[in-house]
Amino acid sequence: MSQPKVVLAFSGGLDTSFCVKYLAEDKGYEVHSVLVDTGGFSDEELRTIEANAYALGVKQHATISKTSEYYNDCIKYLIFGNVLKNNTYPLSVSAERVFQAVAVAEYAREIGASAIAHGSTGAGNDQVRFDMAFRIIIPDAEIITPIRDLKLSREAEIEYLTQKGVGREWTKAAYSINKGLWGTSVGGKETLTSEKYLPESAWPTQITKTEPESITLEFEQGELKGVAGEKFENPVQAIQKLAAIAQPFGIGRDIHVGDTIIGIKGRVGFEAAAPLIIIKAHHTLEKHVLSEQQLYWKEQLSNWYGSLLHKGQFVEPVMRNIEAFLTDTQSHVTGKVHVYLAPYRFHVEGIESPYDLMSAKFGSYGEMNNAWTGDDVRGFSKVASNQVMIYAKVSESNQ
Amino acid sequence: MSQPKVVLAFSGGLDTSFCVKYLAEDKGYEVHSVLVDTGGFSDEELRTIEANAYALGVKQHATISKTSEYYNDCIKYLIFGNVLKNNTYPLSVSAERVFQAVAVAEYAREIGASAIAHGSTGAGNDQVRFDMAFRIIIPDAEIITPIRDLKLSREAEIEYLTQKGVGREWTKAAYSINKGLWGTSVGGKETLTSEKYLPESAWPTQITKTEPESITLEFEQGELKGVAGEKFENPVQAIQKLAAIAQPFGIGRDIHVGDTIIGIKGRVGFEAAAPLIIIKAHHTLEKHVLSEQQLYWKEQLSNWYGSLLHKGQFVEPVMRNIEAFLTDTQSHVTGKVHVYLAPYRFHVEGIESPYDLMSAKFGSYGEMNNAWTGDDVRGFSKVASNQVMIYAKVSESNQ
Amino acid sequence: MSQPKVVLAFSGGLDTSFCVKYLAEDKGYEVHSVLVDTGGFSDEELRTIEANAYALGVKQHATISKTSEYYNDCIKYLIFGNVLKNNTYPLSVSAERVFQAVAVAEYAREIGASAIAHGSTGAGNDQVRFDMAFRIIIPDAEIITPIRDLKLSREAEIEYLTQKGVGREWTKAAYSINKGLWGTSVGGKETLTSEKYLPESAWPTQITKTEPESITLEFEQGELKGVAGEKFENPVQAIQKLAAIAQPFGIGRDIHVGDTIIGIKGRVGFEAAAPLIIIKAHHTLEKHVLSEQQLYWKEQLSNWYGSLLHKGQFVEPVMRNIEAFLTDTQSHVTGKVHVYLAPYRFHVEGIESPYDLMSAKFGSYGEMNNAWTGDDVRGFSKVASNQVMIYAKVSESNQ
Amino acid sequence: MSQPKVVLAFSGGLDTSFCVKYLAEDKGYEVHSVLVDTGGFSDEELRTIEANAYALGVKQHATISKTSEYYNDCIKYLIFGNVLKNNTYPLSVSAERVFQAVAVAEYAREIGASAIAHGSTGAGNDQVRFDMAFRIIIPDAEIITPIRDLKLSREAEIEYLTQKGVGREWTKAAYSINKGLWGTSVGGKETLTSEKYLPESAWPTQITKTEPESITLEFEQGELKGVAGEKFENPVQAIQKLAAIAQPFGIGRDIHVGDTIIGIKGRVGFEAAAPLIIIKAHHTLEKHVLSEQQLYWKEQLSNWYGSLLHKGQFVEPVMRNIEAFLTDTQSHVTGKVHVYLAPYRFHVEGIESPYDLMSAKFGSYGEMNNAWTGDDVRGFSKVASNQVMIYAKVSESNQ
Repeated sequence: MSQPKVVLAFSGGLDTSFCVKYLAEDKGYEVHSVLVDTGGFSDEELRTIEANAYALGVKQHATISKTSEYYNDCIKYLIFGNVLKNNTYPLSVSAERVFQAVAVAEYAREIGASAIAHGSTGAGNDQVRFDMAFRIIIPDAEIITPIRDLKLSREAEIEYLTQKGVGREWTKAAYSINKGLWGTSVGGKETLTSEKYLPESAWPTQITKTEPESITLEFEQGELKGVAGEKFENPVQAIQKLAAIAQPFGIGRDIHVGDTIIGIKGRVGFEAAAPLIIIKAHHTLEKHVLSEQQLYWKEQLSNWYGSLLHKGQFVEPVMRNIEAFLTDTQSHVTGKVHVYLAPYRFHVEGIESPYDLMSAKFGSYGEMNNAWTGDDVRGFSKVASNQVMIYAKVSESNQ
Repeated sequence: MSQPKVVLAFSGGLDTSFCVKYLAEDKGYEVHSVLVDTGGFSDEELRTIEANAYALGVKQHATISKTSEYYNDCIKYLIFGNVLKNNTYPLSVSAERVFQAVAVAEYAREIGASAIAHGSTGAGNDQVRFDMAFRIIIPDAEIITPIRDLKLSREAEIEYLTQKGVGREWTKAAYSINKGLWGTSVGGKETLTSEKYLPESAWPTQITKTEPESITLEFEQGELKGVAGEKFENPVQAIQKLAAIAQPFGIGRDIHVGDTIIGIKGRVGFEAAAPLIIIKAHHTLEKHVLSEQQLYWKEQLSNWYGSLLHKGQFVEPVMRNIEAFLTDTQSHVTGKVHVYLAPYRFHVEGIESPYDLMSAKFGSYGEMNNAWTGDDVRGFSKVASNQVMIYAKVSESNQ
Repeated sequence: MSQPKVVLAFSGGLDTSFCVKYLAEDKGYEVHSVLVDTGGFSDEELRTIEANAYALGVKQHATISKTSEYYNDCIKYLIFGNVLKNNTYPLSVSAERVFQAVAVAEYAREIGASAIAHGSTGAGNDQVRFDMAFRIIIPDAEIITPIRDLKLSREAEIEYLTQKGVGREWTKAAYSINKGLWGTSVGGKETLTSEKYLPESAWPTQITKTEPESITLEFEQGELKGVAGEKFENPVQAIQKLAAIAQPFGIGRDIHVGDTIIGIKGRVGFEAAAPLIIIKAHHTLEKHVLSEQQLYWKEQLSNWYGSLLHKGQFVEPVMRNIEAFLTDTQSHVTGKVHVYLAPYRFHVEGIESPYDLMSAKFGSYGEMNNAWTGDDVRGFSKVASNQVMIYAKVSESNQ
Repeated sequence: MSQPKVVLAFSGGLDTSFCVKYLAEDKGYEVHSVLVDTGGFSDEELRTIEANAYALGVKQHATISKTSEYYNDCIKYLIFGNVLKNNTYPLSVSAERVFQAVAVAEYAREIGASAIAHGSTGAGNDQVRFDMAFRIIIPDAEIITPIRDLKLSREAEIEYLTQKGVGREWTKAAYSINKGLWGTSVGGKETLTSEKYLPESAWPTQITKTEPESITLEFEQGELKGVAGEKFENPVQAIQKLAAIAQPFGIGRDIHVGDTIIGIKGRVGFEAAAPLIIIKAHHTLEKHVLSEQQLYWKEQLSNWYGSLLHKGQFVEPVMRNIEAFLTDTQSHVTGKVHVYLAPYRFHVEGIESPYDLMSAKFGSYGEMNNAWTGDDVRGFSKVASNQVMIYAKVSESNQ
């Protein structure tokens, strides 16, 4: 009889390394480790992780390159929607984890796995994101979560691996870092309570630029296609270029406190220079080219989109409907945005767009007055206040 | 037969000075000028304006002190609601103008005026705010708007006044400034088009502080009652104290581009150190003490509240209903917020509150896991994905 | 020098007949009358109207057939969105008038008219719908509105026409009726005040069916394609077939009281058997095949869509974005809906759909329990109540 | 050592009768049965249930009368909000069950119970409502759910009880009925699938009135205080009076298909004459006395309120905030509503209110035109179309 197959979402860290051994040796599974690359790893890192996987005893390790898909199926809409959770956090980790969970589940389904595993603990959001993607996409597979279920301490995991002959050193950094295309999260002792900010040394990118500079971002139908004079076919490269320029300024740092899927409040530091600059630039461009109604409904749907994504509901059919809406709104979102960068901060200087609704072609703020008269506005104000005027009279007559 | 009375919203500038003469001499009105003080004037400025009014020939000038009412009836709710128009602008001018318009209308009603006048041009938002407040509160009064209707140039107004013997010098600043309790707006040649930022020299408060400092804000049921160790009974004073500390850092500068009531896009610079810090601090505190549901609905109602206020709909009855909602949400919004100030920027360091939902009293992020098991979350994820799982199966079965 | 051209939205009634004479003879225009047929006229009625137009002296009369476009560009989305204003009124007149106004403006633009006219009075919604469509689509044309501006009484109009040699009899019905594809409106003395219902005799379709019957409606991707066993390529015919079956039951009568664009409350009777049955049937089908999230957001966007349509904002770009959303939601809205018809009333009996999420293929209400355990739900409930449980504890600890 | 106390939500049916014996004899608990009366039981029924509880061996049985609280804390807001789930279902069962669950949990806390039990199965909404209320209000108590966990068949439960010497006859009705103040639900074989309606005989109240009648409802600040000429201090009695009048017409029957908390679709028949009439009447009155803005936001918040209530989130703090909003909107909702009742149907004839915004005191639909001119509306339309007009020009210039 053949061994049952388990697909394991593998990051190469202590927890998922423990899972490999545990699933293979204690549980008798044929372990297929998978790493979904969404732009957070160098080639060398990927090779090391693969080597470690085989060293731990996986039957097969797969590195799934999904950076372009991650952009096209997810990040693109976060830009279209100017999505910042609670007006703060660009969903750096949330988006990535949900997208990875879906890719792992699809892989498990393809290779006919009977079980699927992740190494998340029982205290965070990621466990739910994995659970839900697995349950929806490959509902008949058993979901195995050794770290959550065994509640082992870090020390116990290391001891287990040492006994199994895994000789690697497992060092614990003072701050846990999660790096991805859409930002880097930082957790540490300050984020476990409410009172303190992260110290300068905790931020993954240290500040090496001190001289302010101005750059121009170019958007085509909502997508970033040019940065500082360089054009890109693939917006992923534009994002990476902008990150290389802006990150050394220490731009885009903050701490987000938010509602986890499991109901408790969670606090996380992040640095996300490129996401924050792109969203502010894109939003400013939109304020010039979209109607008030479009801006209002984009905001409603986008906030919800971000919220469902955060909660692991990426596969929910309404997400596709919202994407259709957002895509349809971007036809005029084309133009240049001038951005000023300085240590720790940036601002948008201004925009240029053929679709600019305050374009001089149709008169400037003052001259536009030619398109209507004082009497027109007088009439407008009168009609627009009719209901409240009547309401006020009715109220008085009842006093 | 007695002269008809007109009440004129008077600022002391060229436009409203013209209006006094025009209404009194060309139109034969008994002119009652009114200035509604909402915290943007010094005592000396108020005395000068009053003297000028009488010099121009008003029958009576009234200075109506409404700063506390302005805070209690309006600013307070903008704080409760963390209101930033398009996530950017604290409605510095909008709130003030609407509030003043209502006060002028109520005054006109009290003194039995048969006409009511404002000096706004035909190209901006303020005309509508005045028109609507006048129409609703004193619907039978004629609304007179000389500047809008006569479309006189600045030069023509000066010539008219000179001919009438008004000898004042009328200088035009390069940037028009509107200073109030809730921020200062700045308009100039850059804001007439889309492309450029305001130059350093255009900002009303020049930067005089370079050394970063950390201060603590204290909120009681959503209201600012302490700043940097000093306690205040009246939040107006707390706001002014914070402004004095933060403004010299050049914090809170930006340019807002928004939809005017008359349908065109308008661009305005603003500096609003205190409002931006208070809103970010208050919002961060709320993220710790309110439920996810409360945060969501507060945002919906507050954005709408800000939008109606911007459009001059302050008297709309739904505004009172929203205020009842917002007030009801603030019972737990009590605590300290630590804020870091530096040139051009600030961030919230952290908060302390007896209502903090991530308080250590109920376990930290990790320990809270004691309140549920891995199996509980497994069950949660399973049930929470039921509908999408069924949807996915139904979709497949139809392919 | 050639005469200036005016395009007149022409219905053949007293008001627009007056307009023809007035524009041609008093104002010296070359009058081009236009009737936009959206399904409310018989061929004979159209021929009579055309003959009357020429008899009155128009240079050219155009009958623009737009029933299919009306369905495809407008009614279709009202069905996708289950749009009932204030949960009551299917926007029978609003949709039609806005659509007609746009078609008249496009026609005026095509033939190069320098003026464009409508016959609406100054007390209703239609004037604004015409004004806005004209202003947006052909902004340089003068808008002429004789009835609104001259404020003539009915008698004065008749006298004017008689003097001009127009010998037609102008009878005034006790109730004004507006018949269209999407329902018929009825106004009369009862609807001018708040208290009374319309009498039986006022309803345009008298009741001639008393024996209940059950019929089946067939939807394909949200569109009505089958009625009572008959299939239709063109949903317009399906709607007309259903109207023929259901209207004689007196189904779909009600009185709507709503907010007019000009701020006053307006009351209107309507009979709309087909629209009300289609919307209830379509909505019930959707409750079976769409996710809870889809239903929620469809409702938000659809209500807004209906509201903007009502206000004459059909050309607003957000309308296209919402249509993209709605269209994207309809891929699963395919199936049969069984409907029971009786005098004055109907109900949906049930539905059949391959996309039914409560389909027996995935287990019935009871059996679905096999997909999860009691412990799963226990875990779900525990995690889902975490936040409020913590909130309650925090509240108590502060008492 | 004393026996541990369990509080059991007791209805007197087979499932909860089984629970008593099982908890007392198999589990060794001191059983405290509780019935929360929210208006669905006669005094005699309550006495029988109490007697049965003691016969089964409870230590103590409590009948908690909460009808007035149920109205004041819950039903009142469903009326203020015109709450109909998916525009159909007045939440007859949902509201009641959630309210009862909270009352049971509070009772358990008062008497210091260490466990708390309910008899719900694992396939419905009620289990989650009980679980959540118990978890939030008395978080340290063990939650025991014998029916859900043991998954016993009806036959097995009866056999168990017979063996324990409980001699009652347990008959199963063809339709399960749940009767309450806010409506009666009906489930049976037709509601287990999607296709069929309930037969006439399944409806709890058979039709005994055939002669139409018109009655008047009187509202004071949103609350029903008069029915058909009789005045009531307590709206509960007004609701019961209306039910007595309207139910024999067979009014208010329908089938609701909705999203259960556990993700599957559920279908339920209901008859709710009084709730449906009250909501339609109240809503119609509101359309006359509230502003468009108030109607819009009331609808948003009320739908959400109903949805959270349905999901067992009655204790969520945002519910209190929404109640504050709703209460604040009702100050003008005073007046008479005339309603026509006939077999299977009703309609609102009209309303009378001193707060009516279409009151003749301020001019009728036609006369109100005196408050503005054609030019005012022309100006209104021009200004209101500015943005879309500019948008259209910008679009063209880019083609």
